[in-house]
Amino acid sequence: MTAVASALPPGSTIGILGGGQLGRMLALAAAKIGLKVRIYGDDPESPAFDIAAAHTIGDYTDLERLDTFASHVDVVTYEFENVPVDAAEHLAAHKPVRPGPKALAVSQDRVVEKTFIDGLGIPVAPFAEVASPADLAAALQRFGGPALLKTRRLGYDGKGQVALAPTDDPARALRQLGNQPAILEQRVSFAYEVSVLCVRGLDGSVRTYDIPVNTHAGGILRRSVVPSPLAPHHQEIARAFAERIAGALDYIGVLAVEMFFMGGDAPQPLIVNEIAPRVHNSGHWTMDACTTDQFENHIRAVAGWPLGSTSRHSDAEMLNLIGSEADNWLTLAADGHACLHLYGKRKTRDGRKMGHINRLRPKV
Amino acid sequence: MTAVASALPPGSTIGILGGGQLGRMLALAAAKIGLKVRIYGDDPESPAFDIAAAHTIGDYTDLERLDTFASHVDVVTYEFENVPVDAAEHLAAHKPVRPGPKALAVSQDRVVEKTFIDGLGIPVAPFAEVASPADLAAALQRFGGPALLKTRRLGYDGKGQVALAPTDDPARALRQLGNQPAILEQRVSFAYEVSVLCVRGLDGSVRTYDIPVNTHAGGILRRSVVPSPLAPHHQEIARAFAERIAGALDYIGVLAVEMFFMGGDAPQPLIVNEIAPRVHNSGHWTMDACTTDQFENHIRAVAGWPLGSTSRHSDAEMLNLIGSEADNWLTLAADGHACLHLYGKRKTRDGRKMGHINRLRPKV
Repeated sequence: MTAVASALPPGSTIGILGGGQLGRMLALAAAKIGLKVRIYGDDPESPAFDIAAAHTIGDYTDLERLDTFASHVDVVTYEFENVPVDAAEHLAAHKPVRPGPKALAVSQDRVVEKTFIDGLGIPVAPFAEVASPADLAAALQRFGGPALLKTRRLGYDGKGQVALAPTDDPARALRQLGNQPAILEQRVSFAYEVSVLCVRGLDGSVRTYDIPVNTHAGGILRRSVVPSPLAPHHQEIARAFAERIAGALDYIGVLAVEMFFMGGDAPQPLIVNEIAPRVHNSGHWTMDACTTDQFENHIRAVAGWPLGSTSRHSDAEMLNLIGSEADNWLTLAADGHACLHLYGKRKTRDGRKMGHINRLRPKV
Repeated sequence: MTAVASALPPGSTIGILGGGQLGRMLALAAAKIGLKVRIYGDDPESPAFDIAAAHTIGDYTDLERLDTFASHVDVVTYEFENVPVDAAEHLAAHKPVRPGPKALAVSQDRVVEKTFIDGLGIPVAPFAEVASPADLAAALQRFGGPALLKTRRLGYDGKGQVALAPTDDPARALRQLGNQPAILEQRVSFAYEVSVLCVRGLDGSVRTYDIPVNTHAGGILRRSVVPSPLAPHHQEIARAFAERIAGALDYIGVLAVEMFFMGGDAPQPLIVNEIAPRVHNSGHWTMDACTTDQFENHIRAVAGWPLGSTSRHSDAEMLNLIGSEADNWLTLAADGHACLHLYGKRKTRDGRKMGHINRLRPKV
């Protein structure tokens, strides 16, 4: 199957599961190239609804609503990795779902995810499946240093995780996570975090964006900068890891792969932290610094179009606007070097991503 | 009144008269900075409807529909200069209309427009008001060379105009234009056409984009390229003309001023051809080559926000996709150097603007 033969013509409708800012920016990107969008969301105030030609309000487990949604679209994609796999598989019986349900299944369970990546010969931090306090006690002892206990499923932006020392009480830690199935990850000491944004087309062609270095605060991405200080040969390794994962998932669309750079002298200079089967916050700088941004390239891939260039014309810094930071919109709008993006969210909440700014500088 | 005190906060609604591609791209720009849009259009298939949170279908003379529209928006702007002045004035009694009705009144009548510009001490091509064959005969004789007869009102993309030689039959020429009130413009021999895109904020601050050189085919803009070959001191003159016009109109938003460059040795190196009180096709390259594009800057001005930077990070060429040219979307999408924009128009017609591509090159 070639991209050309099966490309959806302009005027076709992309169905997007999820109505948050990523769905909104996907909708804007689809509009730019003449494609329509129908958003499926469970929140009547979803910010993506304002941009879409149509929307369906429903729960992600409501198969009847999902059927109605599917009947109005030509292809289905999603903006978040916690779409129930059942829903994705149900939809896939009616319309192409891209990326496929396998990418969801792998990325929704941290144990499955790490096992999958490890199975591709790609380094990950040591981890252990935790089903009981005894499992946890054994793993803590084995790692012998600081570790992170996380729920296997759900959790994002630092939610659903607890930092542990070897001496901490295993039963208490598991109670903190509501005694859900969990994973213990050895806390590794890394130089910095990078992410590879790669896009894979329907015909299997793959492109990657230049690699940003990411900094977090309070578990939430704060800042992404390109270029990163990553040396060219490490960049090559990082890109190859992402492409190997995308290929193994028979992936279609943008895939984000977060990695830790352990230092040039480390036996494994790069280890993969996690993947996100979707457009990603650490790729928002592409909106203003690239020929084709991550959102348009995701839409192109999903629609079976040729991928757009991922080349970058400027150096860029992306800064998230979190919670009340976006209240400074007027000051931010007056900053002549900032490309301002606001997500149209009606309510400001602590820790909520309300927008971002991209600052461009001439490429050095 | 400062921009800051009266800036509409994110979540406010911009009302846009007109649902074509310019309205659509204005809607996309508004969404980027968290503003909502309601489109007013007379065509149920208006391409801008798909992007807007809401729309109203109605005739531009239907004051009752316009009232309903006005009641749902915080400010009104427009995407085409043929909005009836009566409608704009009616709306202005309820909500701010930006740019103001004066800009419409001036730009809708070629005689008024040229007289206004000439009155500002800015050169225009010799012109004459034509109300009768006798007027036309006299003017043709006075100019003594090739001339263009145009309707005073309406007409765009080369429609509503006739090229004349001094020996042509005046009565026949006027019949060709349906005996409408007309203007005869001396056909001037220019080196090339440029346009100045300037944006003026609510506080009177003005910024201009770098000046593109424009080429037409069949009366329709074909290509705009920045930088133009215009020498720096001529660029200064051109910018000053545009800013003078914007100031005299107490203009708010993006104003496009088309000019002919007559050659460096000409007594008047630059003469103004026409103005458009709106975002303009010759500014579409700003979407991919500038920190803040013409659409966002128009929305910012209209919303009372500080203007965004008009600085350009790349050289750019904009090429319109006219009529069936957009049928090559798949080939165009595969061109790695082209930023592709398609307008979501349901029907292809000869001469209809269906999309455009921007090609970027590093700034030299």
